Amino acid sequence: MDIIEIIEDKKNKKELSKAQIDYWIEEYCKDNIADYQVSALLMAIRLNGMSKREIFDLTEAMMHSGEIIDLSSIVGVKCDKHSTGGVGDKTSLALCPMVASLGIKVAKMSGRGLGFTGGTLDKLESIPGMSISLTPEEFINSVNKIGISIIGQSNKIDLADKKLYALRDVTGTVDSIPLIASSIMSKKLAAGCDCILLDVKYGSGAFMRTKAEAEELAKVMVEIGCHFNKDVRAEITSMNQPLGLAIGNILEVKEAIDTLKGKGPSDFTELCLSSGTTMLLQAKIFTDKDEARRALEQSISSGSAYNVFLKFIENQGGDTRYIEDYSLFPKAMYSYDVKADRTGYITSFDTMGLGLLSMHLGAGRETKEDSIDFDAGILLYKKLGDKVSKGDKLMTLYTDRDKMSSKVAQALNCLTISEENIIKPKVVEEVISYDSINKKFVIESE
Amino acid sequence: MDIIEIIEDKKNKKELSKAQIDYWIEEYCKDNIADYQVSALLMAIRLNGMSKREIFDLTEAMMHSGEIIDLSSIVGVKCDKHSTGGVGDKTSLALCPMVASLGIKVAKMSGRGLGFTGGTLDKLESIPGMSISLTPEEFINSVNKIGISIIGQSNKIDLADKKLYALRDVTGTVDSIPLIASSIMSKKLAAGCDCILLDVKYGSGAFMRTKAEAEELAKVMVEIGCHFNKDVRAEITSMNQPLGLAIGNILEVKEAIDTLKGKGPSDFTELCLSSGTTMLLQAKIFTDKDEARRALEQSISSGSAYNVFLKFIENQGGDTRYIEDYSLFPKAMYSYDVKADRTGYITSFDTMGLGLLSMHLGAGRETKEDSIDFDAGILLYKKLGDKVSKGDKLMTLYTDRDKMSSKVAQALNCLTISEENIIKPKVVEEVISYDSINKKFVIESE
Repeated sequence: MDIIEIIEDKKNKKELSKAQIDYWIEEYCKDNIADYQVSALLMAIRLNGMSKREIFDLTEAMMHSGEIIDLSSIVGVKCDKHSTGGVGDKTSLALCPMVASLGIKVAKMSGRGLGFTGGTLDKLESIPGMSISLTPEEFINSVNKIGISIIGQSNKIDLADKKLYALRDVTGTVDSIPLIASSIMSKKLAAGCDCILLDVKYGSGAFMRTKAEAEELAKVMVEIGCHFNKDVRAEITSMNQPLGLAIGNILEVKEAIDTLKGKGPSDFTELCLSSGTTMLLQAKIFTDKDEARRALEQSISSGSAYNVFLKFIENQGGDTRYIEDYSLFPKAMYSYDVKADRTGYITSFDTMGLGLLSMHLGAGRETKEDSIDFDAGILLYKKLGDKVSKGDKLMTLYTDRDKMSSKVAQALNCLTISEENIIKPKVVEEVISYDSINKKFVIESE
Repeated sequence: MDIIEIIEDKKNKKELSKAQIDYWIEEYCKDNIADYQVSALLMAIRLNGMSKREIFDLTEAMMHSGEIIDLSSIVGVKCDKHSTGGVGDKTSLALCPMVASLGIKVAKMSGRGLGFTGGTLDKLESIPGMSISLTPEEFINSVNKIGISIIGQSNKIDLADKKLYALRDVTGTVDSIPLIASSIMSKKLAAGCDCILLDVKYGSGAFMRTKAEAEELAKVMVEIGCHFNKDVRAEITSMNQPLGLAIGNILEVKEAIDTLKGKGPSDFTELCLSSGTTMLLQAKIFTDKDEARRALEQSISSGSAYNVFLKFIENQGGDTRYIEDYSLFPKAMYSYDVKADRTGYITSFDTMGLGLLSMHLGAGRETKEDSIDFDAGILLYKKLGDKVSKGDKLMTLYTDRDKMSSKVAQALNCLTISEENIIKPKVVEEVISYDSINKKFVIESE
């Protein structure tokens, strides 16, 4: 076996064999294949694509490049969720306690934010005392005891993905559906859950710009799941505006708490209810969609979801006084209101622009080494389709950095106010699953 | 400027600007851009191609990445020739003295052989005493004095090509016409001659497998030449059989001497006469093709071409006793005759197979570090279209390595003997030049 032959084959549009893919991944992880050879192969894959069979084999090879987490000692159905990344995406914080309160076992490993996207770990760490580093035993015991634990991704799983992702990031080979799908799914499969719900985002604040691209990626990932005998479903959601009203770590934690108490923004609450419903069906805790949704609504109104959240925070060392009274959280040193410069309707957001703005305010990191100001970020007051009058507050920018007043004009450039209104967008556009008996995709939309 | 942006642009089939190409080549030569980024870009170029303008700019950037040789102190028209590499290709050894004897100034830098192809430098070094390392002054003085000097390529010219070629070789990005054309032409342009004749080979013993590919490459290189105001012409020649009868360094030197004395194989003699004619027209020493050819024939019959060869060898320290009596050259320790296993006509050669066989016999190198046995190689007795009877000698293998008798069967596998004969192939199929006034290619074929 020879890496140059593998590159030549993919360059010449030949299908790579399982043996070739295994060789590539194994030898690359052992540093026996040079980065400059793998980057040429990645570009050939980006331009010539991969067959389903190649994608399955690549996912499997990557999955086996590190530890496979054994969750068999957790009693119950283990469900995972994964979002392809967005702006204001605090879904795990509210959704996971909701489904855990109804019997799903949430043993979740999360990542950090980078660039315009936020990460669950950063949001959790904004809660004083909260630890996201548990031993494997502590992690499993926590899930068995209170139904939920969220920790940082083990650096022992999917070693190939770490190397490949770092290389793709600097060689123009990020935007390849076979490479994105195998990267996400190899990690999720190595994480050992029974069911996985994927949130594939598209639009101005997502990696996938169009709904069609998001659907294509979602279908590939759902089929990978099916190939590995896991119930994997994917929801297609729009990132043409931020999710909810809060962007930034503490601001998003507060919004998650509000949502768990039934006072969250309508779009974010809807995403949690819709996602939770799918997860409860996947876990077979409910067979009827409406019943599942009603149970989730009741988990909020009864306070049981919020109580699971409290126990989860307490169990991982977090100071629950901040949860019980979130006015205790530190506040940013500076705030700037952004006001409407005309009257009309909000008809578009540059969501990535707002994500990057929030990063520049201190809420995110440009490179992995950057630190974060947990209290920085953006609070929105208006969303797509909302009417605004000239002078209305559209959002407030929070930062600990001085001389940020120029960001007000930049923020205003991240939205459009028009005379004619648009139809408010749906939150979850579709849920895609795979019917393995009839060998076809099932696409449900409201 | 940012290399990732350049990679993204080429990946997305955008035309790279001159500034982007200059940045890439300059910064790569300064080691400010990583190999893994350049290899991704090379694969994107291999798969998405380059426009003429991009190829011109790449050639120019590479040409300026090292020294440009100044040959202005040589009186007369300086002509260079370049072959894309073949098996048994000793053309420079005979052709250069022929045209030098008629007034062309040959100031030539050559390369070594690698893999199945031979190199002019190795053949020259098989002559005892011969030096291919002259100082720039010695080089220019030699050409002024006797009309010809051939030396090793300066390692100060075209620094980009050295780095890029080494990278292409291990990343599956050799077979790209824009990259091949810019690599050859940047070196040739940096070498400072006025006219360049290219021998673009195709077939079973060449990098270009089909005539169409060879024509495409030839046209690109001829147009590059025109863009830089040089008279560049290209001949398309077949490598569907070895050139002449000898493969291997000393064997080829002997064949070149025979040819300079008018006793060479007909195909090789024809190639020298045809190439020489084109070069004499390019140099404007003759305006009539037939006159030029007759002058070349006379340079052989009168002994003047041979005398230039003798002076050239003597001038660079070579022992001319070996030239005058080539039976003095050392002989290989072992020889094996390969005999026809049936009666019929030779209808095909696996020319690359013979090139590799010759390498394994010791005549070539697999890696740059390998050493060469100058006396090893293959002597053919039959060529395409020749009739053979069972038991006839087809070729003799020469080697200094023991236990090589298994190579006889391998050699027999490198040709086909059929009942029905084929038409003997032409030596030079076409000569391609560019008419810059009417902006069109001129293709001449016999």
